[in-house]
Amino acid sequence: MNSWNITPPDAALSAAIQHKIDTKTKPLGALGQLEALAHQIALVQQTLRPALHRPHVLVFAADHGIAQAGVSQYPPEVTHQMVRNFASGGAAINVFCHQNGLGLTIVDAGVRGSFADLPTVRDEKIAEGTRNFAHEPAMTAAQCTDALQRGARLADELHASGCNVLGVGEMGIGNTSAAAVLMHQLTGHALVDCVGRGTGLDAAGLAHKLDTLTRAVAAHSTVGTAPLAVLATFGGFEIAQMCGALLRAAEHRMLLLIDGFIASAALLVAARLAPAVLGYCVFCHESDEQGHRRLLAELGGRPLLRLGLRLGEGTGCALAYPLVRAAAGFLNEMASFESAGVSDDSGSQAVRPTQTN
Amino acid sequence: MNSWNITPPDAALSAAIQHKIDTKTKPLGALGQLEALAHQIALVQQTLRPALHRPHVLVFAADHGIAQAGVSQYPPEVTHQMVRNFASGGAAINVFCHQNGLGLTIVDAGVRGSFADLPTVRDEKIAEGTRNFAHEPAMTAAQCTDALQRGARLADELHASGCNVLGVGEMGIGNTSAAAVLMHQLTGHALVDCVGRGTGLDAAGLAHKLDTLTRAVAAHSTVGTAPLAVLATFGGFEIAQMCGALLRAAEHRMLLLIDGFIASAALLVAARLAPAVLGYCVFCHESDEQGHRRLLAELGGRPLLRLGLRLGEGTGCALAYPLVRAAAGFLNEMASFESAGVSDDSGSQAVRPTQTN
Repeated sequence: MNSWNITPPDAALSAAIQHKIDTKTKPLGALGQLEALAHQIALVQQTLRPALHRPHVLVFAADHGIAQAGVSQYPPEVTHQMVRNFASGGAAINVFCHQNGLGLTIVDAGVRGSFADLPTVRDEKIAEGTRNFAHEPAMTAAQCTDALQRGARLADELHASGCNVLGVGEMGIGNTSAAAVLMHQLTGHALVDCVGRGTGLDAAGLAHKLDTLTRAVAAHSTVGTAPLAVLATFGGFEIAQMCGALLRAAEHRMLLLIDGFIASAALLVAARLAPAVLGYCVFCHESDEQGHRRLLAELGGRPLLRLGLRLGEGTGCALAYPLVRAAAGFLNEMASFESAGVSDDSGSQAVRPTQTN
Repeated sequence: MNSWNITPPDAALSAAIQHKIDTKTKPLGALGQLEALAHQIALVQQTLRPALHRPHVLVFAADHGIAQAGVSQYPPEVTHQMVRNFASGGAAINVFCHQNGLGLTIVDAGVRGSFADLPTVRDEKIAEGTRNFAHEPAMTAAQCTDALQRGARLADELHASGCNVLGVGEMGIGNTSAAAVLMHQLTGHALVDCVGRGTGLDAAGLAHKLDTLTRAVAAHSTVGTAPLAVLATFGGFEIAQMCGALLRAAEHRMLLLIDGFIASAALLVAARLAPAVLGYCVFCHESDEQGHRRLLAELGGRPLLRLGLRLGEGTGCALAYPLVRAAAGFLNEMASFESAGVSDDSGSQAVRPTQTN
């Protein structure tokens, strides 16, 4: 699983794409960030007429041993409860996927307790949560590989079904702790800059979380920076499955919608394994979780939305998707200056007098 | 037309709305700005179950005498050409309204030339463009009143058709000049902070525009700050019709989607006539036009999108509308902690140990 066969989008088409954007009936650059997004989508699909098919969000859920250390505002059983809420359609991600026309699959990557009574929850359970990385590695190397493979298989299935836009989200009480340590280990940013309030810790809760994670990092001082070793030591099963899904989807040249802090941490691991994955990524939003802005900078990501979201679940992907569709849409459907008979600005310097009166 | 009967949304419902938001299955505040938006929509509609019906964008087009002074990157005939492009479905606003399910009406508020051959263009022409405010008032007081009334009637018609969400946009070569001077006159911000590059002026073009507008303002030094006098002196027919539409729509308690710099200038005039209009406004985006950030601050507006757009046409309204729908959607459709059987965070302090190991 160390070798991922991701080809960077071929930039040879870039000039033709930009020409198509620039001859649309609007001032040069007037659609701002949507123009860069349209350019990227066309490059990813290697066509001047990109098409978005069967966009789909995978929400990976798992429990974290570190949650037993009281690093979250919510008790660990909320992971299980929220998966049931997803399955019955009551969560934010259900509402936003439905409204914006995205498919949705809930994946049990390693939640405590059974969902045998819920056939719509996809069973990819590695174990009943990770171990507590305050004391021991979160997962074994074999579990980590298994998780990457299971995530990759989900991407294969979606690709085979005709999907070419994959959004990833997650649910897991304690997972901002795991993501913060992954960020710290793989980027070298100080832990204090990676750790945030998660679902809403107060100052005392945040101090406790930082203290807990500082000790945990010290307890694994020999782990180094090899991505898979770091992922196995501190990661979660949902993070590892996300990572595998992103890598395989990039192999399939799918457009990748990146949600918030935890999804970005999964992508960070993926990018350390195969940097070319980044060319396929749309950064959907900048989360209110304090480490996210720095993590986006590390990944070279420019977020589409800045709404102060800090929910996860893939909600940023579902909310940003209409902008992705709009970018592809203007590239395909707008008239050109020539076809619409609209004057472009080439002669405008001539009509500007040097003096107004 | 000086008296507009706008009732501010009654805040008595506010606590009940906030309670409903806070008991949804998500951490407190985790949907960020969407929560404030949901609160506003519920207040505007005075209900815990808001519903968005027949959202519609009115694009008002008009020519400006000041365009003859070469203040734009594009020649004046582009206004007419772009209205034809709107009518044939080739512009960005056509694509985005279609994708996001908004209706669209193109209004000839005062464009040079006839659209008699285009029955879908609504004829509300006041005159063949305004006069050049470098030399004389842009319009007469009677024309200004007529424009406000025509805009108001369009809002009446949409309201009668069942629409309760109105977006306003515009097209008019030269209209960032008109909007900049309106902003300067009504807010006192220095003209240099109100004037921007519009559709893409270079440094020399911007300097010429600023010089032209500085002279024009000086030529009308006695106009004062009465909103209608300022509007008649410097405004455009599309700006005045937008202003009337916004005021009447607020009388009808419709939700108002505000586009970029020029739409915000129309709202500024409206807010000076009837400040209560602001309670009905959703600020869809922060434009790349340099005066817009300050103008939004002046209006107390917090934009939903910051994508570097500078196109007008109502494109910001159409692009932001899915976020408006998402805000109403989560309020109506998400489960509560109680209904979903999810633990809220009230007991979480108890599960957090003071020491991790």
